[in-house]
Amino acid sequence: MYKVNIAEKLALFSDHWNPRIVGELNSQHVKLAKMKGEFVWHKHDHEDELFFVIKGSFRMEYRDRTVIVNENEFLIVPKGIEHRPVADEEVSIMLFEPATTLNTGNTENGFTKHFLDKL
Amino acid sequence: MYKVNIAEKLALFSDHWNPRIVGELNSQHVKLAKMKGEFVWHKHDHEDELFFVIKGSFRMEYRDRTVIVNENEFLIVPKGIEHRPVADEEVSIMLFEPATTLNTGNTENGFTKHFLDKL
Repeated sequence: MYKVNIAEKLALFSDHWNPRIVGELNSQHVKLAKMKGEFVWHKHDHEDELFFVIKGSFRMEYRDRTVIVNENEFLIVPKGIEHRPVADEEVSIMLFEPATTLNTGNTENGFTKHFLDKL
Repeated sequence: MYKVNIAEKLALFSDHWNPRIVGELNSQHVKLAKMKGEFVWHKHDHEDELFFVIKGSFRMEYRDRTVIVNENEFLIVPKGIEHRPVADEEVSIMLFEPATTLNTGNTENGFTKHFLDKL
């Protein structure tokens, strides 16, 4: 029954590729993240992911196409689909996905975050 | 892998209290709705609900308190909690909730929508 102010939460961190949990419902997490640069190619075998752009824009690369996602747009990446987010400039996003979702999916590397902070 | 532009979808309808489905993932729906006036008191026995304000503001009335939700804020209403959204002026919201969620929860009345359009 709590409310969350997106701008206030985004002001609490500045690092990239490190999602924070800001809401939980129905075994799903609502996360906020800032992205800049190229992430790693990965997929989630069991989870669909929603990326909602709060501020800025980014491109989602798939193996066979690229989709530009602008402010106030969202993109759903279905489970099993390889993808890589790339942001030339910093972008702030809200994620909606199952609580089981690992940020780097089926890969393990320097970007992997097994434990996320809650804000 | 499709993207959704919120403003474009909101421009497609003008009626109040009639959510449209604009995304599906992990057995959850993403919906857009416009609200104005008083809704009915209800609860969802099995579903938590997230209300994200795209434009405007509204108040969520609970039996023992009221929470004002402004633009770029979201509110999570846990399952089982009676609530009633009220909007003095029109507000546009995005909802995240299980696909099983009925808009009027445990009640049936003139607001009840058993079938929602997909945009």
